[in-house]
Amino acid sequence: MGIKEAFSQHLIDLQNQICSALEDIDGKTKFIEDTWERPGGGGGKTRIISHGRLIEKGGVNISEVYGEIPNALKEKFGVKEGEFFASGLSLVLHSHNPHIPTVHANWRYFEMYDSNHQIVQSWFGGGCDLTPYYLVEKDATHFHQVLKNMCDRHHPNFYKDFKADCDRYFLNSHREEARGLGGIFYDYLKETQNISWMNLLAFQIDSGNSLLDAYLPIIENHQYDSFSESQKYWQEIRRGRYVEFNLLHDRGTHFGIKTKGRTESILMSLPPRVRWDYNFKPEKGSEEEKLIDALKNPESWA
Amino acid sequence: MGIKEAFSQHLIDLQNQICSALEDIDGKTKFIEDTWERPGGGGGKTRIISHGRLIEKGGVNISEVYGEIPNALKEKFGVKEGEFFASGLSLVLHSHNPHIPTVHANWRYFEMYDSNHQIVQSWFGGGCDLTPYYLVEKDATHFHQVLKNMCDRHHPNFYKDFKADCDRYFLNSHREEARGLGGIFYDYLKETQNISWMNLLAFQIDSGNSLLDAYLPIIENHQYDSFSESQKYWQEIRRGRYVEFNLLHDRGTHFGIKTKGRTESILMSLPPRVRWDYNFKPEKGSEEEKLIDALKNPESWA
Repeated sequence: MGIKEAFSQHLIDLQNQICSALEDIDGKTKFIEDTWERPGGGGGKTRIISHGRLIEKGGVNISEVYGEIPNALKEKFGVKEGEFFASGLSLVLHSHNPHIPTVHANWRYFEMYDSNHQIVQSWFGGGCDLTPYYLVEKDATHFHQVLKNMCDRHHPNFYKDFKADCDRYFLNSHREEARGLGGIFYDYLKETQNISWMNLLAFQIDSGNSLLDAYLPIIENHQYDSFSESQKYWQEIRRGRYVEFNLLHDRGTHFGIKTKGRTESILMSLPPRVRWDYNFKPEKGSEEEKLIDALKNPESWA
Repeated sequence: MGIKEAFSQHLIDLQNQICSALEDIDGKTKFIEDTWERPGGGGGKTRIISHGRLIEKGGVNISEVYGEIPNALKEKFGVKEGEFFASGLSLVLHSHNPHIPTVHANWRYFEMYDSNHQIVQSWFGGGCDLTPYYLVEKDATHFHQVLKNMCDRHHPNFYKDFKADCDRYFLNSHREEARGLGGIFYDYLKETQNISWMNLLAFQIDSGNSLLDAYLPIIENHQYDSFSESQKYWQEIRRGRYVEFNLLHDRGTHFGIKTKGRTESILMSLPPRVRWDYNFKPEKGSEEEKLIDALKNPESWA
C-alpha cells in the first residue's frame, strides 16, 4: 500500500470517528450524508449536521478527485498537461453557543503526474484553527498545547513554523485582524533529508487524529454556559468576518470555485446565520473588545 | 468647468436628492453621515440608513480620490507611474420587506495622468440593477423600461449593450444563476466618433437621475405587503447569494480591498442579516422556485 492508499483509508476512518464523536456529544441530531461524483474523475462524501444542540451547522467532508489537471491548476503549477490526484478531509463546525468556538480543519494529499503517468510532484497540506467569539485563555492554551505536543512527536520545528504560517494565512488583511486564535497550517510538505515520506504520513495521520483531543474538551467545558441575546448578536457579527475571510481571501475556497468543484460542499464552511452592521464596534473594555485585541496581536499560546 | 468638476457637483446633488427621497418614503429613520479622508489623497461621505421602516440597511456613498496610482492599478492598466483621479457614487439598499427588491447602483468617472500631469486616459462607468426576492414581472418591466427610455435619449445601442453587459457581469457563475434581474452596466465609456464627451456626461447625469424613477414606484407598490416568517427566511437565504457575488466576484469590491480603500464604506454593500443553509432548495412549483428560474434564464424585460 502506497501513501495515497494509506492516506485515503485514514480519511475514511477519520470522517467516521469525528462524526461519531460529534453526534455523541451533541446528542440531539445526526449527520446527513450526500455522496457526489466529479464529472472529470472522483467524488466525495459530504456529511452535514444542522440545528444540533451544540453545533448549529457543521460539515465533515472527504473527497478524492483525479484526472486531467484542471486549467486553473496548470497555470498555478506551471505545467502544460498531465494528471493529478487530490484527497482530503475538510471540516468546519459552527457552534450554537457563542461561548463555544468555531473550529476549522483540513488535511490533504496531492500528486501530480507527467504524460507517462509518473509522479512528478506530491505533497501534504493541512492544519486546524480555532475561532472563538470570546477570549478564554485556558481554551486557547489547551488547543495549541495539543497541537504542539502532536507536532513535537514528529519534528522539533513543526509547531513553531506551522503556528506562524497559520497566523500569516488566516488574516483578514482588510481589517488588520486574524480570523481567530490560530492553530497550525502547512502546505507543500515534502520529504527532505530530515524527514521521510513515511514519517510525513505518520505526522499527517497524527495531525488528523489530534482534532478531537484539541476541540472536544473545549465543547465539554462550555456546553452548559448560558448566553444572552447580545452575545448571540456578537457571534453573528463575528461570523460575518469568517465569511469575509473565506470568500475574499481563502485560497482553498477560490481554488474549489475556479476548478468548478461542488459548490454546496465548498460553501458548507459558511456560518448558518450572519449579521453585518455598519461600522460595528464593541464597547470599550468589554469582553468583546478583548477578543478584538487578541485578534490584532497574535500570541504564543503554547 | 470641466467634466471632472461638473460630475463631482452632480454627485453631491445626487447624494442629497436620493437620501432625501428615501428618508421621505421611509418615514421612520434618517441617514447618518461619516466623512473620511484617504491618506494618499481625497476622501468621501458615507451615508448609512439602518433599521428603517422600509430599508433594513442601506448606504449612499460618494467619494473623490486621487494621487499616485496605487500599485494594484498600475498592473491593471499597464503603467509604471503617474497620478489618477476617481469620483463616484455607490448605493445599495437592502429592503426589510421581502416583497421589495434590493437595489444597487454606481456611477463613476476616472482620469489617469502621465508624469507631466496630462490626461492619458479617462472614462465613465456605472449602472444599476434590481435583486428581488420574488418575481413580479410588472416591477422588472417598469425598472428596465425606465432605464431603456433614459438610454434611448442618448444612444440607440446603449440599452441593448448595457443590459447584456449587466447580465454578464452580475452572474454567480459558481451557481449558474444571475444575482438579480439585471438592469444596465457599463465601463470604460469614452468619446467616439458617434458620441462626444459632453454627450457622455449628459448620459451619465441622466443615468444617475433615473434611479429614483426606476426604484421608488416599486417600493411604493409593495410597502404595505404583508409577509410571513418563511418569506423572510427565504430573503435571508437569497441575501447569502448577494454576499457570495460581492465577495467572490465583484471587481469593484476586490479593487477597493486591494487598493486599501475604507473597508466599512466598501462593505456597506453587505446585507444586514443573512443565512446559509446547506443545499437549500425551494419547493417545486413555489414562488421561490419561480425566482430561481428567472435568475437562470435572463429575459428581455423592456
